[in-house]
Amino acid sequence: MDYQQAGVDLVNAEEAVKAISALVKSTYNPQVISDLGGFGGLFRLGDEGAPVLVATTDGVGTKTEVARVAGRWEGIGQDLVAMCLDDLVCTGARPLFFLDYIAVGKNEPSLIATLVASMATALKSANTALIGGEIAEHPGSMAPDQVDLAGFAVGLVDPATAIGPERVAAGDRIIGLPSPNLRSNGFSLVRAVYADLLSGVKDGRASTREHTLYEALIEPSVLYAPIMLEFVDRSLLHAASHTTGGGLVNNLARVIPEGLSAVIDPNAWRWPSIFTQLMEDGAISLDEMRRTFNLGVGMALVVAPTHVTTVLGSYPGAVEIGHVLEGDERARWS
Amino acid sequence: MDYQQAGVDLVNAEEAVKAISALVKSTYNPQVISDLGGFGGLFRLGDEGAPVLVATTDGVGTKTEVARVAGRWEGIGQDLVAMCLDDLVCTGARPLFFLDYIAVGKNEPSLIATLVASMATALKSANTALIGGEIAEHPGSMAPDQVDLAGFAVGLVDPATAIGPERVAAGDRIIGLPSPNLRSNGFSLVRAVYADLLSGVKDGRASTREHTLYEALIEPSVLYAPIMLEFVDRSLLHAASHTTGGGLVNNLARVIPEGLSAVIDPNAWRWPSIFTQLMEDGAISLDEMRRTFNLGVGMALVVAPTHVTTVLGSYPGAVEIGHVLEGDERARWS
Repeated sequence: MDYQQAGVDLVNAEEAVKAISALVKSTYNPQVISDLGGFGGLFRLGDEGAPVLVATTDGVGTKTEVARVAGRWEGIGQDLVAMCLDDLVCTGARPLFFLDYIAVGKNEPSLIATLVASMATALKSANTALIGGEIAEHPGSMAPDQVDLAGFAVGLVDPATAIGPERVAAGDRIIGLPSPNLRSNGFSLVRAVYADLLSGVKDGRASTREHTLYEALIEPSVLYAPIMLEFVDRSLLHAASHTTGGGLVNNLARVIPEGLSAVIDPNAWRWPSIFTQLMEDGAISLDEMRRTFNLGVGMALVVAPTHVTTVLGSYPGAVEIGHVLEGDERARWS
Repeated sequence: MDYQQAGVDLVNAEEAVKAISALVKSTYNPQVISDLGGFGGLFRLGDEGAPVLVATTDGVGTKTEVARVAGRWEGIGQDLVAMCLDDLVCTGARPLFFLDYIAVGKNEPSLIATLVASMATALKSANTALIGGEIAEHPGSMAPDQVDLAGFAVGLVDPATAIGPERVAAGDRIIGLPSPNLRSNGFSLVRAVYADLLSGVKDGRASTREHTLYEALIEPSVLYAPIMLEFVDRSLLHAASHTTGGGLVNNLARVIPEGLSAVIDPNAWRWPSIFTQLMEDGAISLDEMRRTFNLGVGMALVVAPTHVTTVLGSYPGAVEIGHVLEGDERARWS
């Protein structure tokens, strides 16, 4: 089983990005300093050196479909916040505010409250205000209990303390922050692999073992934003990459400049059991696992050698997973 | 036929907003100066008097389902931009940037390009940069040609030039900016009324008259942001309300302060024919028409009597539709 067979077309995704690139750039003005592909869009609030607004948007994919199976919506708001804020902090920005878009087949106030409560708790832990949102009821085009979520986050960064490719140097080390679960990526593949399991959970046929697996799948994402803000305040980071669609190495490549290669040692940590089980149950190739899931590293940090011990000691489970060399691959597995 | 019968539950919608109000407010900090119900969330970039960021989010509802019937996606991007930017300018803010979230059953690069081209053209006319976006492919949970859109806009306003309820005074006049079509509101009701028409368009059975009706339904929203920015620059407005869900009077009420009533004269303008036809074809009550559709006024401006002639002369089709009195109704039909 792979992502293509599960209905997610990565070739088309790349083509779509190519198709819109010129259209998007046609809207730019001199205040826009981002390009496609970064972890956030950057908009300068004035002349060079002025503070920069950073904006991100993301959804939780079809993890909502897995939540829907057993009506387990408690963690999905946190997933949405993590998807957006953990992208934002990869620029060094401090998040200011967040807005949510909730599309539902039927507007059930208790469901909306559950979703927003989870968002609010996650946002408060990162001092981020929820200042707006839209609840869109789509009768007929969505099933009554179907939900789709999108989030939007805006932060502010002083160019002097921004992190990113321009700070990365040969000799830097890569540290991984642990993710015990899938976060919010790869769920179309998960649904294809576990179609039987999910219907079993729904109609009560699932075994205890299957219920345990379902619990692991639906666990909310770790929110890295709070610790990331602390690292940024203490000037401990050169760059950071949030492991989302594409996997660890492809996301890390986005913050490694030309002329350097980040090399990741796959033996530096053990995969959380959900990933080994998924690989086995779905007969998924190692390559496919690597480009679809975080495999236990939800955030990769690029730090100077002098800061490795400090960073490792500041977050339980943080582990050194690689280093930066001269090279032309941006990022690769060793 | 009414909105409730079409599956949109306005009572639940109100309850959902009540249910999340305390949760949302629990995330606020002293920089948040908005409250629920305004046209945008407001976040102050510093101490009192500092510039204020304004953020809005909205979708296009199930107008995408009407677009899907005949594969007519050319105008939907503009609808999305209009829904977000025309809310934003009701605060007096100048839009800075926009992000889009596109959920699709299958990622078709040419469809994505059509959607983004329409957004980009609309955004350029309001000097707004498209700095980010997410394309979410949801195989299985959405039909291959199904699309949902959400947008997110951020602008900046100087508190000294902000518009809103605090500027409105008894004696002010209300001017309507014309909308020849439904913009992006009321489409769940439209789909219920015209289910047969829409399937006829899809399978080629529709008559020429039916095709004309379909064309009117799918027409893109007028984008008021460019003229609104000109009005704000010339200090011609006290307040403004974008006619979205809830209709003209309910949206206008959001910018009228306690102690005043905006009175709208329903005879001041003629409904564009699409609305009379819809009322007839759907046997929709006048009350329901008024709280569901814009009825030809997509933006209502509150202006001082001295500026009425200038504003009327600055936009083709602008018409005086009411005035502000002492009273306790915020807004009503005369």
